[in-house]
Amino acid sequence: MTVVRLLGIDPGSRITGYGVVDMDGPRSRHVASGCIRTASDRPLPERLKTIFEGVSEVIRQYQPMEVAAEQVFMHRNPDSALKLGQARGAALCAVVMAGLPVSEYAPRAIKQAVVGGGAADKNQVQRMVALLLNLPESPQADAADALAVAICHGHTRQTLQRLAAVSLPVRRRR
Amino acid sequence: MTVVRLLGIDPGSRITGYGVVDMDGPRSRHVASGCIRTASDRPLPERLKTIFEGVSEVIRQYQPMEVAAEQVFMHRNPDSALKLGQARGAALCAVVMAGLPVSEYAPRAIKQAVVGGGAADKNQVQRMVALLLNLPESPQADAADALAVAICHGHTRQTLQRLAAVSLPVRRRR
Repeated sequence: MTVVRLLGIDPGSRITGYGVVDMDGPRSRHVASGCIRTASDRPLPERLKTIFEGVSEVIRQYQPMEVAAEQVFMHRNPDSALKLGQARGAALCAVVMAGLPVSEYAPRAIKQAVVGGGAADKNQVQRMVALLLNLPESPQADAADALAVAICHGHTRQTLQRLAAVSLPVRRRR
Repeated sequence: MTVVRLLGIDPGSRITGYGVVDMDGPRSRHVASGCIRTASDRPLPERLKTIFEGVSEVIRQYQPMEVAAEQVFMHRNPDSALKLGQARGAALCAVVMAGLPVSEYAPRAIKQAVVGGGAADKNQVQRMVALLLNLPESPQADAADALAVAICHGHTRQTLQRLAAVSLPVRRRR
């Protein structure tokens, strides 16, 4: 089975987490992870540039084949929804302008994939990501979320491939 | 006095308006305006790509020197705030990645600049923009908003230059 390199991103107006994982069948290996931080006292355009360039640089450096991000459903606060949206727009633009496909996953699906339950807290996600990827310590919260969505995507695409293998040989593509 | 070419943008998740205006002293001349439309049935990454590429193409084609956008303060609906934010993030990224400075203006300031009152409705803005720019008919609403913010920026930068001319010769830059 071939190794597939996946990038998970967790965009935020102050911190955008990223996580690069190699999936070799059911096994996942940590390649890199970290945070792109924006200075909150800088003007919005500059912060968006930092996110766009940061994500572009991660893609250039690690050459992932596919990207995954957490789907945002609903936010209670319109002001933070706007800020999150702007950061997300910048991060996703960097991905699509690099020509990579993005899959979005619901928060519950991501937690289900790494912790086994949809109601896990941030701390559990951090610890399980460290365990699954054999890391010496828990990654920073946003980097852990990014690694989690990458792992979730890895499992999902593997399941889809297995399903495709037992279904009719003619596969439809969008 | 030199002519300055300004681009106004009015990002939205479905329609992003743009307006290019040449400012020659207090006079403004319409260069181009229109809309970048995204298909609502397409996935988010594709829609963000359409906005990013659309704004990039307008910049490439008309070569503006400065860009202006409406500042978004508060939204009642968190869901539409997130969507607007994503579109804004994509549009502003295209501007900053083209190396252009962006100025943001409050909705009241824009209406004040084109209609003379901060409480004008969309219709009044469309008609006044047509009048100020000598257009044969009212531009589409989002294109009109984009032209309005470009005109607002043109007036503001002119006022700032006039103030700078009478102030101390040593000017501070951020």
